[in-house]
Amino acid sequence: MEPLKIGIAGLGRLGKIHAENLVKRIPNATLTAACSILQHELDFVSKHLGIKQLYTDYDEMIRSADMDAVAIITTSGMHCAHLTTALEAGKHVFCEKPLGVTIEECKHAEKVVEAHPNQVFFLGFMRRFDASYQYAMEKVKSGAIGQPYLVKAVGIDPLKYIEGALKFAPTSGGIYIDMAIHDIDLMRWFLNDDPDTVYALGSSYGYPEFASFGDAETGCALYHFKNGGMGTIHTGRTAAHGYHIETEIVGTKGSIRISPVPQKNLAVFYNEHGVVTECVGSFPERFEAAYLKEMQVFVDCVLQATKPEISVYDGTRCTQIAFATTQSYKEGKLVNIQY
Amino acid sequence: MEPLKIGIAGLGRLGKIHAENLVKRIPNATLTAACSILQHELDFVSKHLGIKQLYTDYDEMIRSADMDAVAIITTSGMHCAHLTTALEAGKHVFCEKPLGVTIEECKHAEKVVEAHPNQVFFLGFMRRFDASYQYAMEKVKSGAIGQPYLVKAVGIDPLKYIEGALKFAPTSGGIYIDMAIHDIDLMRWFLNDDPDTVYALGSSYGYPEFASFGDAETGCALYHFKNGGMGTIHTGRTAAHGYHIETEIVGTKGSIRISPVPQKNLAVFYNEHGVVTECVGSFPERFEAAYLKEMQVFVDCVLQATKPEISVYDGTRCTQIAFATTQSYKEGKLVNIQY
Amino acid sequence: MEPLKIGIAGLGRLGKIHAENLVKRIPNATLTAACSILQHELDFVSKHLGIKQLYTDYDEMIRSADMDAVAIITTSGMHCAHLTTALEAGKHVFCEKPLGVTIEECKHAEKVVEAHPNQVFFLGFMRRFDASYQYAMEKVKSGAIGQPYLVKAVGIDPLKYIEGALKFAPTSGGIYIDMAIHDIDLMRWFLNDDPDTVYALGSSYGYPEFASFGDAETGCALYHFKNGGMGTIHTGRTAAHGYHIETEIVGTKGSIRISPVPQKNLAVFYNEHGVVTECVGSFPERFEAAYLKEMQVFVDCVLQATKPEISVYDGTRCTQIAFATTQSYKEGKLVNIQY
Amino acid sequence: MEPLKIGIAGLGRLGKIHAENLVKRIPNATLTAACSILQHELDFVSKHLGIKQLYTDYDEMIRSADMDAVAIITTSGMHCAHLTTALEAGKHVFCEKPLGVTIEECKHAEKVVEAHPNQVFFLGFMRRFDASYQYAMEKVKSGAIGQPYLVKAVGIDPLKYIEGALKFAPTSGGIYIDMAIHDIDLMRWFLNDDPDTVYALGSSYGYPEFASFGDAETGCALYHFKNGGMGTIHTGRTAAHGYHIETEIVGTKGSIRISPVPQKNLAVFYNEHGVVTECVGSFPERFEAAYLKEMQVFVDCVLQATKPEISVYDGTRCTQIAFATTQSYKEGKLVNIQY
Repeated sequence: MEPLKIGIAGLGRLGKIHAENLVKRIPNATLTAACSILQHELDFVSKHLGIKQLYTDYDEMIRSADMDAVAIITTSGMHCAHLTTALEAGKHVFCEKPLGVTIEECKHAEKVVEAHPNQVFFLGFMRRFDASYQYAMEKVKSGAIGQPYLVKAVGIDPLKYIEGALKFAPTSGGIYIDMAIHDIDLMRWFLNDDPDTVYALGSSYGYPEFASFGDAETGCALYHFKNGGMGTIHTGRTAAHGYHIETEIVGTKGSIRISPVPQKNLAVFYNEHGVVTECVGSFPERFEAAYLKEMQVFVDCVLQATKPEISVYDGTRCTQIAFATTQSYKEGKLVNIQY
Repeated sequence: MEPLKIGIAGLGRLGKIHAENLVKRIPNATLTAACSILQHELDFVSKHLGIKQLYTDYDEMIRSADMDAVAIITTSGMHCAHLTTALEAGKHVFCEKPLGVTIEECKHAEKVVEAHPNQVFFLGFMRRFDASYQYAMEKVKSGAIGQPYLVKAVGIDPLKYIEGALKFAPTSGGIYIDMAIHDIDLMRWFLNDDPDTVYALGSSYGYPEFASFGDAETGCALYHFKNGGMGTIHTGRTAAHGYHIETEIVGTKGSIRISPVPQKNLAVFYNEHGVVTECVGSFPERFEAAYLKEMQVFVDCVLQATKPEISVYDGTRCTQIAFATTQSYKEGKLVNIQY
Repeated sequence: MEPLKIGIAGLGRLGKIHAENLVKRIPNATLTAACSILQHELDFVSKHLGIKQLYTDYDEMIRSADMDAVAIITTSGMHCAHLTTALEAGKHVFCEKPLGVTIEECKHAEKVVEAHPNQVFFLGFMRRFDASYQYAMEKVKSGAIGQPYLVKAVGIDPLKYIEGALKFAPTSGGIYIDMAIHDIDLMRWFLNDDPDTVYALGSSYGYPEFASFGDAETGCALYHFKNGGMGTIHTGRTAAHGYHIETEIVGTKGSIRISPVPQKNLAVFYNEHGVVTECVGSFPERFEAAYLKEMQVFVDCVLQATKPEISVYDGTRCTQIAFATTQSYKEGKLVNIQY
Repeated sequence: MEPLKIGIAGLGRLGKIHAENLVKRIPNATLTAACSILQHELDFVSKHLGIKQLYTDYDEMIRSADMDAVAIITTSGMHCAHLTTALEAGKHVFCEKPLGVTIEECKHAEKVVEAHPNQVFFLGFMRRFDASYQYAMEKVKSGAIGQPYLVKAVGIDPLKYIEGALKFAPTSGGIYIDMAIHDIDLMRWFLNDDPDTVYALGSSYGYPEFASFGDAETGCALYHFKNGGMGTIHTGRTAAHGYHIETEIVGTKGSIRISPVPQKNLAVFYNEHGVVTECVGSFPERFEAAYLKEMQVFVDCVLQATKPEISVYDGTRCTQIAFATTQSYKEGKLVNIQY
């Protein structure tokens, strides 16, 4: 079978990871084209990955590059426009999270996806493809913890990246939209249900600047799910120990915690501080294998004409929930989530 | 110095623990009298602990026994009446949590305590006396985690006691009043602040009977604190692995988790299940040393005429918060906490 | 029943621990007398523990103090002489490890103990009374790990006490006699067998002074047991993280590790170093409860006329094994252990 | 740069892993040929990996296939013959451990490698390429634990594979040669030194058949290193919990343990057994990434004309040490290791 020809749009930190995976680690795909508004990023993939079809204009790449599919790793605000162009041009689409930055454009994306039922649309919630999360889901499905009824999700960025977070804060949409959307996806995935109400708080003890932007350094939210389940989110930006992603699924017969100690690797140190486990320092380090896996699954879906598990509707719902959470935090009140 | 003479009221499971500690492990106290409405409990302390002054009537013990202080381990509904009688009779008082079962009696208890400023009144929130919690508080005070701004408290009873929980549920006051009050105390202690709003949920997936009693099998609550801090509580009754009490204190420079693995002891098993840490099975097992320590501190407070750290007002506030939490759960709305 | 009247000989660091336990925490014993060659130690127990019968001469205490039993916590070289005097005077004896410093005096001690079969002789291998070790033994006896065939014992003193270790080294008898004797006892206990050959090494990388005393900073020994089982010992003095006592019992169906993380308590820190468990810093901290438990068991043995599990022969054998281990290290050859 | 053309010899369990890595995950290599004496293995790589040049005769593959290098994954007894043929034909060689099954053939292999200094010879001690071992080595080199002076290596196969182990035992060369050779390599690597004496034991408590083959179910060995360092090996075949590879490096300022809990992934279960970490079940699962990494490094060494860190002399020395260890176990005496 011929490898799938893919073009990539967006060559930032995550874009480079996907580009390198497509070139080096996904045997049934070929990265044929790349697009970025930054010339030095194009030079980079030309030189290091041998990509020859280079574009500074997204629409032009879609029109003229030799490719069957596109990986959209552009800024969040462009996702919906880019996926629309691609689908309408007959391309399969891998799209980074979030689906969109307004509900309206998410709803529009749904219509575009619906209009092209034979093209794969894949939304990059990579955590679902992490080996530990996949194992946890298998165990949940096998009944190992009985009926799951509570998901407690924690996502905290490393303190060492705080300067970047502060700089990005005024335009990020806020911590619940920018960061917690992954946790929202996990809650929905493990509970197989949607929340109907949310109450959310935020604090900015270390860096009050976040509050001044209408955002929060740390957020805590509590969700009631339609079938009576519950979810909690603790999201933040100031983990001294590293990049902390932890999820607990509580069921009637037991519970599973994924990564309560976000270890860098299997080495444990016995030193003057005590017994020390060093931690992962960033999302590319933690989810390196998951980023590869999700793209591999996307490629396989296209080549084998199968449907991805994650749908465009998941993207819309996560965005709706993130907006409702943000509203609850900003208005200080309980919010009924509208779908 | 002469040992402190103490009488004990209530000889149930926890009463027996306190009685035995007073007789065997607290050298500067003497258990001189005991009261219970159950003759077999009195027989027990007579036979095994050598207590000679035995009463079935609390007031009579207070009036006539040779004692300077009383340990009140009676049913929650009697705490306020019993502490009032004792204080008015000039006795020092150790009182099990909760302070009372209505706000009114708590407020009354405050007045009685205020009227006897030279007598020690000590409220038994034993978790504060656990070595790990004390160490965590020392670390917090030393600045090890910067400014604490979030406390995440978990308290789950073992599944193996579910029958007792079901039986007790109709009269327990509900999970937030009966169980979460300890977690409420810990949040207040570590944040050194009071919450002003609460939103609480509950579910009863394994044992829907709890819902039918107006109670919940598992509860999740989110608190906003006056100074902007946050607290979460996850309380339940169905831990398959044992008795799970875990508290995380999150600060601007780090965090502390107390007992994420509620280990029975230091033995770790490598067997067909994997690497297994067996867990503590009950509150007496987990807090054995804390029950001893709190009573020792009470005795020392009396003999050295020092003030306990925990006050009657802490008791009232915890009760007020527990009531507000229950109200939020029952009414499905955000509740402003009244003090 | 009347409490057992005990005198204590030796009031150093460990002696004080036993004295305080006897006064405050063992209800069926009374510490009636104390002996030390240091006046300030006698003053200490007089003032803080209220002991009235004070002696600078051991024999005089045995002759004249009002006591049924003696706790011998004197220097190792005096253990055999002191236990002989006591047993011959009709006293029950609790004796700190080691039984003696030569095989000859151990053999002599055996004879003295045999000559007084109605008096309790109790040897203080406290690790056997630690809750985790007791639990492990219960599990082993219940068949949880099948047939145990290998014990791996680790005992490392904290680096912070290295100055004391260096000072004590020239007269300590060497690391295998001074420290590893506890590990030897544990190997014998869990395998229920005696080793017949040993090969031992030593190194002194951090503090070569140990080598110049004919001792080793760190020792590793490998034992073959009579029934075909095996044992390993890793003993040292330079644990940066604290006081490290770890024992693994390997059986045909699983294994048990006791304290691979020698945690100070249940608090776990998430900070700039990673996820950190602080460690116990000394033997009194690690074995606080075991020191109390062993003395309680001794008192109960006397009062209930039961035999202690540990015998004088255990003391001799451990000493014989420690000597053979030392010989192997010093001579660089395999040693057959003589009993 | 053109990808390296590689042929593979041996398509068993591990051979298939290497073949698949070469085809799918190593972008600068191409698997052009494959050799196996089993037709169905050749059919497999033809069908699933698209390999076209297939051989049942090794020498013929070397002579006629279009390849610059060969990966030798054949049975241990053929390694030396196969590497000789390949080197003499001008091919670069990746050779699975062990180098050879007799010292003589190892010495011969050294000469052949020396005679072809411009061809890469790479020995597959994959553990050195595991991310955790590499991180540990970096830390050691950075001085994090001071001067390393003791390595404690544990390698235990899963009990579930015991039938295969029993079947293979009569011809395996024994547990020290078949299994411990990896641990021997790690000791030498971390201590940067060679042992000069060894004492080794063995037991066969669960499966006495091993003893009847002159082998042992479990082995324990103690090594003295030339510069005074020490090493211990615990190797076995009956880990109930899974595949247990653990290594501790002890230095003057701290120590590192690699994988004391051989976790399957980051999920932790709280269930009726306690807090449970499931474990990896096999060497392909544990060292999946290391097998890929070592082959990638081999390819890079060839393409960039750099020397591998592991040399043919490492292979000889590990074999010499494994033989001496076996001799010590069989003869029950201390053995001086000859190089």
